[in-house]
Amino acid sequence: MLAPPLRQQSPGAGRVSQPPSGRRTWSVTMLLHRAVIPYLRQACRLKSAPSRVCIRACSTDDSLQPQCPSLAFSGDDSSTGGWKVMGTLLGLGAVLAYHDHRCKAAQESPRVYTREEVRSHSSPETRIWVTLGCEVFDVTEFVDLHPGGPSKLMLAAGGPLEPFWALYAVHNQPHVREMLAQYKIGELSPEDEVPSTLKTSDPYVDDPVRHPALKVNSQRPFNAEPPPEVLTESYITPNPIFFTRNHLPVPNLDPETYRLHVVGPPGGQSLCLSLDDLYKFPKHEITVTLQCAGNRRSEMTQFKEVRGLEWNTGAISTARWAGARLCDVLAKAGHQLCETEAHVCFEGLDSDPTGTAYGASIPLARAMDPEAEVLLAYEMNGQPLPRDHGFPVRVVVPGVVGARHVKWLGKVSVEPEESYSHWQRRDYKGFSPSVDWDTVDFDSAPSIQELPVQSAITEPKDGETVQSGEVTIKGYAWSGGGRAVVRVDVSLDGGLTWHVAELDGEEQRPRKAWAWRLWQLQAAVPAGKKELNIVCKAVDDSYNVQPDTVAPIWNLRGVLSNAWHRVHVRVAP
Amino acid sequence: MLAPPLRQQSPGAGRVSQPPSGRRTWSVTMLLHRAVIPYLRQACRLKSAPSRVCIRACSTDDSLQPQCPSLAFSGDDSSTGGWKVMGTLLGLGAVLAYHDHRCKAAQESPRVYTREEVRSHSSPETRIWVTLGCEVFDVTEFVDLHPGGPSKLMLAAGGPLEPFWALYAVHNQPHVREMLAQYKIGELSPEDEVPSTLKTSDPYVDDPVRHPALKVNSQRPFNAEPPPEVLTESYITPNPIFFTRNHLPVPNLDPETYRLHVVGPPGGQSLCLSLDDLYKFPKHEITVTLQCAGNRRSEMTQFKEVRGLEWNTGAISTARWAGARLCDVLAKAGHQLCETEAHVCFEGLDSDPTGTAYGASIPLARAMDPEAEVLLAYEMNGQPLPRDHGFPVRVVVPGVVGARHVKWLGKVSVEPEESYSHWQRRDYKGFSPSVDWDTVDFDSAPSIQELPVQSAITEPKDGETVQSGEVTIKGYAWSGGGRAVVRVDVSLDGGLTWHVAELDGEEQRPRKAWAWRLWQLQAAVPAGKKELNIVCKAVDDSYNVQPDTVAPIWNLRGVLSNAWHRVHVRVAP
Repeated sequence: MLAPPLRQQSPGAGRVSQPPSGRRTWSVTMLLHRAVIPYLRQACRLKSAPSRVCIRACSTDDSLQPQCPSLAFSGDDSSTGGWKVMGTLLGLGAVLAYHDHRCKAAQESPRVYTREEVRSHSSPETRIWVTLGCEVFDVTEFVDLHPGGPSKLMLAAGGPLEPFWALYAVHNQPHVREMLAQYKIGELSPEDEVPSTLKTSDPYVDDPVRHPALKVNSQRPFNAEPPPEVLTESYITPNPIFFTRNHLPVPNLDPETYRLHVVGPPGGQSLCLSLDDLYKFPKHEITVTLQCAGNRRSEMTQFKEVRGLEWNTGAISTARWAGARLCDVLAKAGHQLCETEAHVCFEGLDSDPTGTAYGASIPLARAMDPEAEVLLAYEMNGQPLPRDHGFPVRVVVPGVVGARHVKWLGKVSVEPEESYSHWQRRDYKGFSPSVDWDTVDFDSAPSIQELPVQSAITEPKDGETVQSGEVTIKGYAWSGGGRAVVRVDVSLDGGLTWHVAELDGEEQRPRKAWAWRLWQLQAAVPAGKKELNIVCKAVDDSYNVQPDTVAPIWNLRGVLSNAWHRVHVRVAP
Repeated sequence: MLAPPLRQQSPGAGRVSQPPSGRRTWSVTMLLHRAVIPYLRQACRLKSAPSRVCIRACSTDDSLQPQCPSLAFSGDDSSTGGWKVMGTLLGLGAVLAYHDHRCKAAQESPRVYTREEVRSHSSPETRIWVTLGCEVFDVTEFVDLHPGGPSKLMLAAGGPLEPFWALYAVHNQPHVREMLAQYKIGELSPEDEVPSTLKTSDPYVDDPVRHPALKVNSQRPFNAEPPPEVLTESYITPNPIFFTRNHLPVPNLDPETYRLHVVGPPGGQSLCLSLDDLYKFPKHEITVTLQCAGNRRSEMTQFKEVRGLEWNTGAISTARWAGARLCDVLAKAGHQLCETEAHVCFEGLDSDPTGTAYGASIPLARAMDPEAEVLLAYEMNGQPLPRDHGFPVRVVVPGVVGARHVKWLGKVSVEPEESYSHWQRRDYKGFSPSVDWDTVDFDSAPSIQELPVQSAITEPKDGETVQSGEVTIKGYAWSGGGRAVVRVDVSLDGGLTWHVAELDGEEQRPRKAWAWRLWQLQAAVPAGKKELNIVCKAVDDSYNVQPDTVAPIWNLRGVLSNAWHRVHVRVAP
């Protein structure tokens, strides 16, 4: 993020600096803050209180924020002359002191604007204003800090936030409102209603009805997991309780008119496949476990706040998938493996009001490898895909993070670069615990593809009371990349001593261990024990293991949470 | 291990029970111990003191013990009637008490045997005796406990141990002698010298001269590692200091007469390839890091004793290898991928006196995959292979544990099962920390192939004093299976806070990251700090990480030691 030059303020800023009466001091303060604080943060690496407040307040689940092309708003091209503020002539202390007064000043006697005035502030040159209810905010300095990317926030520039918050309901949280309050510059004139054309209808109104057993983490978009004890009741997760991770409203697609667009190679022929066309490819059927990168995020949150949905241990499920192999479809379109690295990009038919679809990509080498068994799946556990799981067609990429299993698949293309989707490039990546939202560089980390080894205890539950004598412990274990689970160790004493659990479920194929193992252990409760610290950890056939603790793998997005799973129970006397 | 039936003692045991005078009580004690203790261990899972002593005393590096077919010794087929000892009539307490007297009794006034008598005890039926120096031991009960397998110990049955201890010098350790003392039954008559035919010449006499910089962990067979600070001085490890892990004496092979035998498929044609024949295959060249499964074993030993060589952080090195691709050679012999799981078995030309060679295997799917780049290498860093590294031809299996990179390659075959080599089936496997030599079931764990993510600090060294101000920390990081290292985190405070290290060395290819990354970090030493607990941990592109601590991954063989590497240094005042 580069701060605007200090020498000249933008015309919009100049406008703010002409308040009706006695508000000049406050306006200058605002200008100084906006112009100087970013500089301080950048050049001096100042961890000042204002800066911190601002960063902390950006706390949204950016996985819900697609990156979109900028939308041109017809704001006025105001040419009011700008104030020339020589921030460098003022001391830092003064700047900070001014800043402290800022919010208070904003609350005192708000400046009133018309909607037309707001509309004229829709670019960095004019400054960027938005409204929420009757309040007006200048978010120019925040645009570059928006976790969903600047372009997303620019969609609302000069207008109301409501239509976008309706889509990304995660914004409706106290810390987001607190952050926004920092940028308040006034209020809308009472007669200035939200124009009816911008009033939003509920984009989720057509979402399907869900199973009541699901624990809902977010209603819009819908994100929910099965309760742990239900999850491991069966090796194959029944469709109605399979964990659901949607990024956008569920599209309602007509199987008759559905078409999958497969872009051909340069000079080649593209395909436009109906469902019947897809059925004509050899039907391939495999059992695959899907896991969200955010599974077990709640354990990271317990250590330190992260941005993301509070998944417990249930953002993982297993189904029998059937469909056409992606390699067959790509070959039919004339694609073949090339020497240089390439990527297969997927686009969903779920999209936001601007038409930006969910997207992701996987390496071409995986897509073209018949042994990798990447599917364009149209069946889940012997049924057509449920709407929440991508009806009529979704990608299934065995051994790979759920985010690449694009649902409601609309388009497949082969590109020299990874998908430019927000979710490929600005989300679903892992970072060091030392990286925060001030320092994160999304380009520095690879997009998550294969997931690390994972296991969790599903019975007993944390806080439960178990009987003395013998305790039965159950759970699941899985690893990415087709690596088989070879062992699950369980401890009753927090990891001092270990038992080897019994692995249930289907045997795993070498190199194609796409599905989890369920496991259980019957263990004697040591006499006299009043509580047990139950721990599990899995080992896969590359002999990778889970890390002991969560703090050293903590990351700002709360993904890849695969430390030992720990459950504390009391023993009945 | 199944104990012999209690009802009848073997003829050999009967012979022992006829001591010249007043030794009857001791002999019965011995019998009871030998017959009853294994039962107790097996049936009652008794962790009795005698049992523990025995198990602890078996502490040898079984990786040095090849599994061989039994060798028929021409021992007498003694038919002396056995004593019938009804151990079940005696209480456990008596057995244990007798056991305590056993060693003392053995030391008092030893029974004297002729070499001919010893020779007659060379089978379980006659009991199994061996000699060391002038002492005679009945090792019948120990045979099944021998870490190198019963058949290996049976090679010495009825005769002296010296020729075998010369080969497997690891036996020359106090705890092995202590264990052996438990089984002493007498001494050789003074006039009974070791027959000259059994006197051993030194099988290692022809081993090459090594570089003095190498830190030798075992002279015979030769096992040595470069000092850490030398190791990471260059991305490519110079041949003379490349870590050396030999299991047997180094064969001295004539490149002119060298032949590689490649067994063809059923009904097909086998190949017998000279070096010139191998040179005719397309020459393939890749940079590959080799790591021994025992790298960093010394850290496991610090937690709890293991069986194995005391490798520090240097059982890993990187070279540029060139040779024929295994897939090309196998294809030439008519092999192709099959639906059912199969394995490519390798046999070395290094062998013990019985002709048993070093051996290992890898899955056929890996061998046949051109992308896996398995080599029959004849060049190492632009030179013919050094003798210590397999001259003239060795296998290089990128991303896989060193033990499968068979040196001095003599034979390649495709089999439905893994190699029956000791090192494939009874070694180089990982187990739970709860598994000990009493409970280990080698068939329950997969042979190590791909290795887990690994990293270590090579500078500064543990215990060093660093200057205040700034400290430079260096090390290496690598992962198995072609998974690239994407990040190395370094902590100066034992893992509370982290810095991201800078990755040096060549960029890694996607899915073919066969070589390590060197890394370094320049970090400010926090003012006033008197000591630093430096820690490193790596992350690979499957986002697997190293576990925090060594205890939970401890295993009885001390392999797969990949916990965070920790170095404690003092800061100069």
